Amino acid sequence: MTRLLDPLFRTDAMRDIFSDQARLQGMLDFEAALGRTQARLGVIPKAAAPAIEAQCQAILFDVEALARAAMLSGNPAIPMVKALTALVAKRDTKAAGYVHWGATSQDAMDTGLVLQLRNAIDSIDADLARLALALARLAKKHQRAPMAGRTWLQQALPITVGLKAAGALSAVQRHRARLRELRERVLVIQFGGAAGTLASLGERGLDIAKALAAALKLGLPDISWHSHRDRIAEVATTLGLLVGTLGKIARDVSLLMQTEVGEAFEPAAPGRGGSSTLPHKRNPVGCAVVLAAATKVPALVSVMLAAIVQEHERGLGNWHAEWETLPEICLLSAGALGQVTQIIEGLEIDTARMRRNLDATHGLILAEAVSAALAPKLGREAAHELIEAACRRAVERGEPLRDVLANDAQVGKHLSAADLDRLFNPVNYLGVAEQFVDRVLATRSVRKK
Amino acid sequence: MTRLLDPLFRTDAMRDIFSDQARLQGMLDFEAALGRTQARLGVIPKAAAPAIEAQCQAILFDVEALARAAMLSGNPAIPMVKALTALVAKRDTKAAGYVHWGATSQDAMDTGLVLQLRNAIDSIDADLARLALALARLAKKHQRAPMAGRTWLQQALPITVGLKAAGALSAVQRHRARLRELRERVLVIQFGGAAGTLASLGERGLDIAKALAAALKLGLPDISWHSHRDRIAEVATTLGLLVGTLGKIARDVSLLMQTEVGEAFEPAAPGRGGSSTLPHKRNPVGCAVVLAAATKVPALVSVMLAAIVQEHERGLGNWHAEWETLPEICLLSAGALGQVTQIIEGLEIDTARMRRNLDATHGLILAEAVSAALAPKLGREAAHELIEAACRRAVERGEPLRDVLANDAQVGKHLSAADLDRLFNPVNYLGVAEQFVDRVLATRSVRKK
Amino acid sequence: MTRLLDPLFRTDAMRDIFSDQARLQGMLDFEAALGRTQARLGVIPKAAAPAIEAQCQAILFDVEALARAAMLSGNPAIPMVKALTALVAKRDTKAAGYVHWGATSQDAMDTGLVLQLRNAIDSIDADLARLALALARLAKKHQRAPMAGRTWLQQALPITVGLKAAGALSAVQRHRARLRELRERVLVIQFGGAAGTLASLGERGLDIAKALAAALKLGLPDISWHSHRDRIAEVATTLGLLVGTLGKIARDVSLLMQTEVGEAFEPAAPGRGGSSTLPHKRNPVGCAVVLAAATKVPALVSVMLAAIVQEHERGLGNWHAEWETLPEICLLSAGALGQVTQIIEGLEIDTARMRRNLDATHGLILAEAVSAALAPKLGREAAHELIEAACRRAVERGEPLRDVLANDAQVGKHLSAADLDRLFNPVNYLGVAEQFVDRVLATRSVRKK
Amino acid sequence: MTRLLDPLFRTDAMRDIFSDQARLQGMLDFEAALGRTQARLGVIPKAAAPAIEAQCQAILFDVEALARAAMLSGNPAIPMVKALTALVAKRDTKAAGYVHWGATSQDAMDTGLVLQLRNAIDSIDADLARLALALARLAKKHQRAPMAGRTWLQQALPITVGLKAAGALSAVQRHRARLRELRERVLVIQFGGAAGTLASLGERGLDIAKALAAALKLGLPDISWHSHRDRIAEVATTLGLLVGTLGKIARDVSLLMQTEVGEAFEPAAPGRGGSSTLPHKRNPVGCAVVLAAATKVPALVSVMLAAIVQEHERGLGNWHAEWETLPEICLLSAGALGQVTQIIEGLEIDTARMRRNLDATHGLILAEAVSAALAPKLGREAAHELIEAACRRAVERGEPLRDVLANDAQVGKHLSAADLDRLFNPVNYLGVAEQFVDRVLATRSVRKK
Repeated sequence: MTRLLDPLFRTDAMRDIFSDQARLQGMLDFEAALGRTQARLGVIPKAAAPAIEAQCQAILFDVEALARAAMLSGNPAIPMVKALTALVAKRDTKAAGYVHWGATSQDAMDTGLVLQLRNAIDSIDADLARLALALARLAKKHQRAPMAGRTWLQQALPITVGLKAAGALSAVQRHRARLRELRERVLVIQFGGAAGTLASLGERGLDIAKALAAALKLGLPDISWHSHRDRIAEVATTLGLLVGTLGKIARDVSLLMQTEVGEAFEPAAPGRGGSSTLPHKRNPVGCAVVLAAATKVPALVSVMLAAIVQEHERGLGNWHAEWETLPEICLLSAGALGQVTQIIEGLEIDTARMRRNLDATHGLILAEAVSAALAPKLGREAAHELIEAACRRAVERGEPLRDVLANDAQVGKHLSAADLDRLFNPVNYLGVAEQFVDRVLATRSVRKK
Repeated sequence: MTRLLDPLFRTDAMRDIFSDQARLQGMLDFEAALGRTQARLGVIPKAAAPAIEAQCQAILFDVEALARAAMLSGNPAIPMVKALTALVAKRDTKAAGYVHWGATSQDAMDTGLVLQLRNAIDSIDADLARLALALARLAKKHQRAPMAGRTWLQQALPITVGLKAAGALSAVQRHRARLRELRERVLVIQFGGAAGTLASLGERGLDIAKALAAALKLGLPDISWHSHRDRIAEVATTLGLLVGTLGKIARDVSLLMQTEVGEAFEPAAPGRGGSSTLPHKRNPVGCAVVLAAATKVPALVSVMLAAIVQEHERGLGNWHAEWETLPEICLLSAGALGQVTQIIEGLEIDTARMRRNLDATHGLILAEAVSAALAPKLGREAAHELIEAACRRAVERGEPLRDVLANDAQVGKHLSAADLDRLFNPVNYLGVAEQFVDRVLATRSVRKK
Repeated sequence: MTRLLDPLFRTDAMRDIFSDQARLQGMLDFEAALGRTQARLGVIPKAAAPAIEAQCQAILFDVEALARAAMLSGNPAIPMVKALTALVAKRDTKAAGYVHWGATSQDAMDTGLVLQLRNAIDSIDADLARLALALARLAKKHQRAPMAGRTWLQQALPITVGLKAAGALSAVQRHRARLRELRERVLVIQFGGAAGTLASLGERGLDIAKALAAALKLGLPDISWHSHRDRIAEVATTLGLLVGTLGKIARDVSLLMQTEVGEAFEPAAPGRGGSSTLPHKRNPVGCAVVLAAATKVPALVSVMLAAIVQEHERGLGNWHAEWETLPEICLLSAGALGQVTQIIEGLEIDTARMRRNLDATHGLILAEAVSAALAPKLGREAAHELIEAACRRAVERGEPLRDVLANDAQVGKHLSAADLDRLFNPVNYLGVAEQFVDRVLATRSVRKK
Repeated sequence: MTRLLDPLFRTDAMRDIFSDQARLQGMLDFEAALGRTQARLGVIPKAAAPAIEAQCQAILFDVEALARAAMLSGNPAIPMVKALTALVAKRDTKAAGYVHWGATSQDAMDTGLVLQLRNAIDSIDADLARLALALARLAKKHQRAPMAGRTWLQQALPITVGLKAAGALSAVQRHRARLRELRERVLVIQFGGAAGTLASLGERGLDIAKALAAALKLGLPDISWHSHRDRIAEVATTLGLLVGTLGKIARDVSLLMQTEVGEAFEPAAPGRGGSSTLPHKRNPVGCAVVLAAATKVPALVSVMLAAIVQEHERGLGNWHAEWETLPEICLLSAGALGQVTQIIEGLEIDTARMRRNLDATHGLILAEAVSAALAPKLGREAAHELIEAACRRAVERGEPLRDVLANDAQVGKHLSAADLDRLFNPVNYLGVAEQFVDRVLATRSVRKK
């Protein structure tokens, strides 16, 4: 929000897309296309279009002056239209009379916003493609590398690094599908005039609307949507889902990075993650940024949803609530996405430590493996109880579970020492982890084509 | 949440779908299908399946006892599995050993939830179809009925009742499209075992998973999704968008129902909307219910988004946060949808009052029409200023704008009295409202096929 | 958030308090006071303090450079300390070694924030005093002016303008009380060093802390609060309550300003509230700003509450989530407060229209008055039913309720024509509205002393 | 929300306070006190009061029937008044005419709610006292027990168990102070009649209000507050702050309980925290419940804040949004508070493991201690850099930092082997942790008196 913190939480690319300049330019692109279209259709004089278009450059406008005027008008489009008209009038008084012809300020603001959102969606989708690639590589490289799977923050069973990466990749692919699907609903013009009827354009309204949509390479909606905001709110909800996934990845990485776990690390960079007082620290700076976004974005999405309840043909206040919120969601999403991508691309994995941590419970983590091996012989419940008791004994005595079981007569009837060795090797108890990874990678290949 | 308030805010149908019984039955349907599938594939004894399935009926379980047990286990699936095993054991000790074979409690809970969500989505989609029909009829019946369009809560320009209805219908159709699209992502089984690898099933995991999905008529996900919750959170966000639209409709109806506006009314019913002390009141009870939902659901959606950030292979607390929240979103959405449908189906419209209200500003509402008529002659800005001044005079003098203009020399040069009469008739300034309605109705017809 | 929209939604005063410069200066004030205190206590050399203090001016720092460095360090305090050390070193190498002595970056950030919050609370309290004065004047001036009281957006009974104003004033006074109460909890230093123990200061830690608090005119907390954030989150919740009240006032004003109601209006100003296309419109621009804040702030408060769940001795991500959120809450609150104050100070009230609107129901609004007059004679329920039926008849026939009742035999037994005239005059049915206003004004006088 | 999950997330005590019966009884207590008061003041016949009061027992009412009727009336008070009137009429027709005399349904609902909130606040405060005691004992017992302090999820410096407990205790005391402060604002009657003027009571309104407040042992507000909801919303925000603290405690405990950390554990109980498939697991069930509340409550608080924006003299929908939300906040808060209290009271602490974990970094965690010891000799920055380099070497070589430093010539000049031994003992680097704990315990003693 400010120069001091902006670069930490937001990407340069998205800050450009949602800069004041870009917001202005979005509205000006609408005005230019409107003039061009109306001139071509003979609604306004031919000569007016180039005269208008020449001034439709954000750089010609005084943002501070527009901001002050917006305090009176209640939106930035009204002063923008006035300033544009004045600029055009300097060179061509007659053309100035045709600026913003038949449109309302929300037409300019919404269509301008949609143009910004198109850039934002393109940018996020490209970043998601890059993240998907990084996750796919990670999943492939460590497809069979065993590590502890953890549920309720407790070690549960062995999994693989590949499985963890593939789970995230699968989610990323769903987010890309959602972004594809919403384009049709979001990337449409807004053009309805003061109350959504295009009344001041008489019978020509729809023709102009069609041509305008074509000129901006946007869709033509079936009806104007000034006070039906689900179209753009869907961008918010979709990014809200995405940021959830990014937060989940960051949470996992930061937990793996704990001093006592030490299995994976954000990429190091000179000066990155240092402490002002503790020379030995390496803080998960990237994860912090992502988790901050994951704390904030759900609430911002709720603002966009609450703001859908707009009055009659134009909302009062709820419309205004969108103006900074939707850009902020895009900015924080892109910031979090950039950080996760960097983290995954440079993730340092300590597979040796992973193996050591798998031994932390002295075999308890493989209790289910033995339980499953005994179940066909003893029945599921009896096997479960036998193993549960053995686990308790192992913990009480501080002995490896394998040894406790090796000394158990009943177990000895069914399992040899070699059996136990095999059962207590985590790579022998990974189920279909490898196939799950293959399935995700295969889906990705299909989708990419 | 309680018997006293539940019926006001929630529908019977959705309360059935998310009752304790239904939650239990969803998990039991999973267990039954799992047993059947594994028996067919020879993973467990053939005879075990019917023995298990026979007990998979919610009615056989003691909800209070399960609830007490869940306080210790931290989820309701663990005691459910224990109780099911005990029930099976009463008749077939051996079969009891194969209950829940290879599964984890979250497998049962998530798949059960997905089965409930399938019913919820079907139910909401059917309700949306009914609402769409009601809106289409309303839009058609009053396609040309003029009423005041209002922006910023001020009369702006004439619109039509049809345009208002069609705007809502267009949104409803988008919500139906979103629900169609998410089915593929949501309606999938959860089956991964304790850490998502199906380890205890050895090499048979995927085969069983495929068959299980088929048995439940659900999709097979590429990978298990225990701690990737975007799939189900998307139901929340999609309903969040829907409730926004419903709130928007209720807001409009309640504003139209104001004593001083009086243009439209919720359907009357004996005893409905009365006051405990004011004999003349007719309260917008249905709108209140919808607006309550629109106040609550955005926040509940934010919970589902925040809860996506789940740790490792199973979330701690955030997973638990979903259990009541997602059902509540479905319940409140269905409640609001039911109310809006009733309201639209029975909406009383006072077109005469609408016409009178169009005269409330003594012609100011048609100022733009005159401005637009003068613009080609005077230029847009000059026309705008002339009319703005005339409006001020009309207000100061309490005279109709038409009369002020009729007495204006400059206006007289360009517009005759007949011109003014035509310009001040709202039906002559509706632009392409009719075509917009046609477009929405046409889209609906296409979609329905 | 940007230059284009900032002035519309936020006040200059609060933007100064939460500017990048002010954030930096807050941290630098901490560093300066720390140096001064430690020198006085002999913990660092006497000469170091002035050398450090001389550089503790935000203007000497390059915000862009700090922002870039914060991307690596994960917070702005670490690069600030480095830059400050470098600045000091230029003049006094030895003193540079004592910059930030014994402190951690969060000590500087939190104490700096508290200094900003002190300014913010002072500023908001002063604005609240001004709003209270405006509301008190309004309540006094129109203490007996009748207008329609409206429940469920329906006319219910007559109230007074004074009652409406006094209701808001009463709430404003509660907000002031809350702000008074939280000062003790919020306005304290943060000083704990890297893990909250002040370990690097040995036994001197508490002495230094006490002196530091005194130097900054802040309280000394019982214990450091790096990961216990309820102190500052209370600022968010308290402002959240305030913004709710502001939104309520703006909602009422905007509803009163509707074309069809027309009872009260935001103050007019040249160019304020105009439309880009509709010359006759006067938009409630101020209300829109306030309602936008009331849509956004509740969600931002939820971020601050969610962020309280911080890990161990310093939060990961949730701490970061506070940095922009709490200032934004202050900014939007101040913006909304400024707008409401302007609106109330300049509110245009059309008491004549209020009287006309009281007649809109042809006497229905006074049905309860007659019902109450009949109740002692007929019983409450019977009277209620008689009047309810009369209301129905009045509506059906389009007749004034008074006339319907005058022609009712049963009514005639108990009420004369003069009785009916008196009962149908709204000023005779205002209950204790006047006394309620007096009570609120009296409380205010007491509080002011 | 349902019988199956309710006991896990909510306490019995709070479920009683917010049961349907209790909601009804709250309203009935209002009606009974109103009748009694009015009879005493001669406003209604003396005999009416006992006749009314006799029926004001929730048990006499049919909740299902009231619920169905509430669907038409839009609130449960209207059918309650009707049913009460009918019950009274059965025995005393005349008295029935004086039921609910002069009141509006919101008077009954709000005052009833306030009576419930009084119980809820009392209950939570008592629970907080118990938690404070448990935390004080924990802080005292382990006041000097060293453990790793962790920032950004990385080991930072040694702290003590006592410091951690005292930090939480300090927060709990602030929550108690907030609850004390809000009583005056919350615990007041609502009594205004249909539009807040008590019009139907003529001049007696205030006298009755005063007596009614006294009868219910509640305060008399300066003015009725039907559409000013900050009073009750403050209960929500205050509990929101509390739940944040509870979540923070649960987060810490669950992190300490991780397999790889193992420093503290929820109390064990037979069957508690077991897994359906993993015999060795012990899940942090209590923490999960608390963290679920901490995920949900912030959003529910935002609902209460958003709902403050109520229209005119009674809100439409936003009022309704409060009815289930505020009770749910109380329920989840009490549930989380109960769990945290149980956890703290029975917390198992493994101080030996804490000591071992302090060695996990081979001395890196005490790097600052050495750095601080060298700083007076080398300057802060030079010392910091020397130690930072030594840390890097220690990590690269896998050697204890102490040994690396012992072999460093420059260090040798300033620190002997004995110095290093002392510096690398964590109990020698705890700063003022002990005093901080004392300060918190002292504050508690003072407060308790």
